[in-house]
Amino acid sequence: MELLHILDLLSTFVFALVGARVAADKGLDYGGIAFIAAIASVSGGTLRNVFLGLTPIWVTDPWIIASIISAVILTLVFRRVTHIGRTLLIMDTFGLAVATMSGTQLAFEENIAWYAAIILGVITAVTGGLLRDVLCQLEPVLLHRETIGTSALMGAITFVALNQLEVTQNLCAIIGGAVVVLTRVLSIRFDLHLPKFSK
Amino acid sequence: MELLHILDLLSTFVFALVGARVAADKGLDYGGIAFIAAIASVSGGTLRNVFLGLTPIWVTDPWIIASIISAVILTLVFRRVTHIGRTLLIMDTFGLAVATMSGTQLAFEENIAWYAAIILGVITAVTGGLLRDVLCQLEPVLLHRETIGTSALMGAITFVALNQLEVTQNLCAIIGGAVVVLTRVLSIRFDLHLPKFSK
Amino acid sequence: MELLHILDLLSTFVFALVGARVAADKGLDYGGIAFIAAIASVSGGTLRNVFLGLTPIWVTDPWIIASIISAVILTLVFRRVTHIGRTLLIMDTFGLAVATMSGTQLAFEENIAWYAAIILGVITAVTGGLLRDVLCQLEPVLLHRETIGTSALMGAITFVALNQLEVTQNLCAIIGGAVVVLTRVLSIRFDLHLPKFSK
Repeated sequence: MELLHILDLLSTFVFALVGARVAADKGLDYGGIAFIAAIASVSGGTLRNVFLGLTPIWVTDPWIIASIISAVILTLVFRRVTHIGRTLLIMDTFGLAVATMSGTQLAFEENIAWYAAIILGVITAVTGGLLRDVLCQLEPVLLHRETIGTSALMGAITFVALNQLEVTQNLCAIIGGAVVVLTRVLSIRFDLHLPKFSK
Repeated sequence: MELLHILDLLSTFVFALVGARVAADKGLDYGGIAFIAAIASVSGGTLRNVFLGLTPIWVTDPWIIASIISAVILTLVFRRVTHIGRTLLIMDTFGLAVATMSGTQLAFEENIAWYAAIILGVITAVTGGLLRDVLCQLEPVLLHRETIGTSALMGAITFVALNQLEVTQNLCAIIGGAVVVLTRVLSIRFDLHLPKFSK
Repeated sequence: MELLHILDLLSTFVFALVGARVAADKGLDYGGIAFIAAIASVSGGTLRNVFLGLTPIWVTDPWIIASIISAVILTLVFRRVTHIGRTLLIMDTFGLAVATMSGTQLAFEENIAWYAAIILGVITAVTGGLLRDVLCQLEPVLLHRETIGTSALMGAITFVALNQLEVTQNLCAIIGGAVVVLTRVLSIRFDLHLPKFSK
């Protein structure tokens, strides 16, 4: 199994964990929790593949489904998880970095223009969380509170810029992923936000 | 016209009827009612086809559109329908069974792996109702109250299991559909639900 | 650059402007404003292309992205725009007409049946505004207040009808677009709405 594939499974797993937690906090039943976990973890990659004319990854890769089922079972078994909120946030940031890089990299492999590769990287990273919040009838975190979109965008731009400089793709992905993590961690640490219109 | 096609049209028709009713109860105008009826009845099959790389069925089959228009006209003509709520529920269950089976069966015809066939069956069955509720700004029935997802999942698993035992596809579909109906009817009759996290 | 392409860019630009404005009024930050502007302006055409088995236009055309960025920058620079609400409505109506025609015309170029061309025209025109409202957690304008869907539908039907009469496609598009504008303007001017169910 390649490194990229393992990272993909890990990001699916952590997005499913976060999704299951959000759904549980919203009071959905076990079925709803599993459903939201699945949507939160695969819809970004699915949309990316549909836009690239490829088959969604869960149609051909059973490990993706196994990742989600594991995350759901883990959530149902270890019910009280309020004290691991911080851990979940760290994992979510890790998932964001991996998803952004896998989206951007796949777009390049399909010979897509750089501007579209950036957008596909961001779509891969943010779609799951957005749909999760919409379906749970919550205010989307992406649009209101955190710098999720900005972090993914900075990482995808970094990947593309380094790639133009003929850095190897693996190194592009590692540095790009680090930029995603750094942007998000710093924005949370120092409470940085993009401005809003003052009313 | 084949039996499967007739069943598909029937499930489109009943999903459109239920969608039109939900939209009317929510106070949408006639245009909104028609729009929600269309979304509720075709989005599941459309998503299934997009994921399988096929053209959505309503692009090539005018009968699908005729089904929806009939359902909308029927809803607008027979306005007072509160007393047929039970009838609608029965028809919705029937639509759920047919949609699950048509999704799973089509996936098999396209030589998709069994785990993806199960998921595609469930997607075909539940997407329309989910989008209907989201667009009408209602709490999604799928995630909160009923065993819609569970029923579709049980039916799809039954189809796949029987198919592995080399039962003919028609028989798989009939038994699988019966499992969908039975699971939903029993869960409503005996008020069975999947558990939630106790707070 | 062809006329159709220029019109497409203009409709993307105005939908992005309207989307950015709605997002700003809802209190989203600059990132959220840009995100909603993008969704509002490209999701209709993207869905149309996915259903037709084509690559989304923003994957291959950088001008689409430039249109959106311009609209967002313009919104952020000229903050106070309440007095141009009327201008925005006029532009939105123009965007609606262009999007309906481009959707219907593209469907014909792909040799799609007339009934599907009508539906694809409407989808191209209304999807962006619908998703914009859902993501901003607003009551969708499409479903509740205005005759957006009706206008798009009338325009698409006009295009198809004229096309059957062997009118040239350019003329079909001009007359069809005029019907969209006229339907919407008259419905707003005389406060015409589709009826609702009386309770």
